[in-house]
Amino acid sequence: MSQVYDRVALIGLGLIASSMFWAIKRAGLAGEVVGYARSAKTRETAREIGLCDQVYDDIKDAVKDADLVVLCVPVGVMGAVAAEISGSLKVGATVSDVGSVKQDVIQSVGPHLPDNVHFIPAHPIAGTEHSGPQSGFAELFDNRWCLLVPVEGTAPEPVAKLRALWEGIGSNVEEMDAEHHDLVLAVTSHAPHLIAYTMVGVADDLGRVTDGEVIKYSAAGFRDFTRIAASDPTMWRDVFLTNKEATLEILGRFTEELFALQRAIRTEDGDHLFDYFTRTRAIRRGIVEAGQDTSDADFGRGPKGGK
Amino acid sequence: MSQVYDRVALIGLGLIASSMFWAIKRAGLAGEVVGYARSAKTRETAREIGLCDQVYDDIKDAVKDADLVVLCVPVGVMGAVAAEISGSLKVGATVSDVGSVKQDVIQSVGPHLPDNVHFIPAHPIAGTEHSGPQSGFAELFDNRWCLLVPVEGTAPEPVAKLRALWEGIGSNVEEMDAEHHDLVLAVTSHAPHLIAYTMVGVADDLGRVTDGEVIKYSAAGFRDFTRIAASDPTMWRDVFLTNKEATLEILGRFTEELFALQRAIRTEDGDHLFDYFTRTRAIRRGIVEAGQDTSDADFGRGPKGGK
Repeated sequence: MSQVYDRVALIGLGLIASSMFWAIKRAGLAGEVVGYARSAKTRETAREIGLCDQVYDDIKDAVKDADLVVLCVPVGVMGAVAAEISGSLKVGATVSDVGSVKQDVIQSVGPHLPDNVHFIPAHPIAGTEHSGPQSGFAELFDNRWCLLVPVEGTAPEPVAKLRALWEGIGSNVEEMDAEHHDLVLAVTSHAPHLIAYTMVGVADDLGRVTDGEVIKYSAAGFRDFTRIAASDPTMWRDVFLTNKEATLEILGRFTEELFALQRAIRTEDGDHLFDYFTRTRAIRRGIVEAGQDTSDADFGRGPKGGK
Repeated sequence: MSQVYDRVALIGLGLIASSMFWAIKRAGLAGEVVGYARSAKTRETAREIGLCDQVYDDIKDAVKDADLVVLCVPVGVMGAVAAEISGSLKVGATVSDVGSVKQDVIQSVGPHLPDNVHFIPAHPIAGTEHSGPQSGFAELFDNRWCLLVPVEGTAPEPVAKLRALWEGIGSNVEEMDAEHHDLVLAVTSHAPHLIAYTMVGVADDLGRVTDGEVIKYSAAGFRDFTRIAASDPTMWRDVFLTNKEATLEILGRFTEELFALQRAIRTEDGDHLFDYFTRTRAIRRGIVEAGQDTSDADFGRGPKGGK
């Protein structure tokens, strides 16, 4: 793999940035990868584990000679971070991000950036329930999608370079417009997360009554919800606040459908339930065929885990 | 491990029965394990893969000399199966089951059984999204809970034997009353399954619009829902119809809580969202500490899978 950028700056050193660092290094995609994190403790951890060729205490120093600056911070602070760095960016540099919401990021970051840099929002669809600088690993993006959401009028050459970086990192890359992105992600990610958070909260209320039994007997179904609901609270708060309309739209449809199934249970309409469950099973097969999961049975213990 | 029963009969040869067979054999817990399935195709598959020491074409032959008969059929047909075998059971035999609902099983099976057998309902809390005779494996129950739900007046000795079998299979065993069981499972399993089915159905409706994108970009959150929603439709239809009250009660609480979170999104109450998500994250830690999952990051590819 050949080098795509001389110098890359990662702003915010959590799961995504740390995984990007290891993946960029694995493939030799950049001459140098530097980083910055707001928290002194995160910077210290990063230095200890060799995350980034250099970690800066000042965000302006981190970005000033970078050919690519990637904002890996919660969506809610993207605008403020853009304002901080706007005066220090190299002419001709590309600014990108990894936020889960794109319309809001474009609206909050775009106005702060000077005309002589390229702004190309992006969203790697990959993650785990862990967060922080120590949670990253080079394989996170392998065979996962990364969506590029270039704003109107972006020159093709910087888009091609950013695409080359993400492909070198291991991703499949597609371009999409911001509005469409936010709707698709509301379905595949944002609404499911809110639902999982809700169910885990309900169980927690009951768990206090039944003295830990909810956790004890969590193997069936609920366990997967808790995994989803363990994701970073700050990140998710910002996702819901910034992709509000699309999320509420999908949740509205969800509630409607849930009420129909509840009614089928109440009226003992077994055929309705059976047909519905048969249809959803087919979707699972589609996902396995699309390579976004394996058909290996998951019964809650990873390779390094239990046995 | 020493032998607990001379002869065990497994009725219904799906995921649970086939896993029980391999686990019983692994530990040498029975002299002989025989089986029966209603479908000729399932019986043929079982014979081909060596599932059961003998597979019978007639359910009465399968149970007649068995010391333990385990009903591994959907909850909705337990009563009919009990009626079929009741005249062929050996005096002093134990009849058990593996259904996910216990009050309904007790009501539908109990009245068919003669007084000279012991009826001890059970529920191993373990499973995968796969079904059928080829889906079983000996490790399924390792370190998972198996709940015994003896009806009032059951003699202690046959309960102790059934416990010894499940412990030999690898499970941790506890006793619980049927009503309590059905409520706890509604929280940890039944409601989460219905919610996952619902979300996958909603996504499917939208997927037709967005031309497969829902599947394509399923890595984040939605993927785990599809896994849950891929479970056996017959089994789950029966679960909801037979644990109707508890499931509807939990779904009512869920909807209430979901509306509160939707309202927090609509009114942009970020603190409410953040506090809620922080609380649910702690529950995940409880589950990992309770040994019901590992803390290994799950990013959708098993050890044998993708890479």
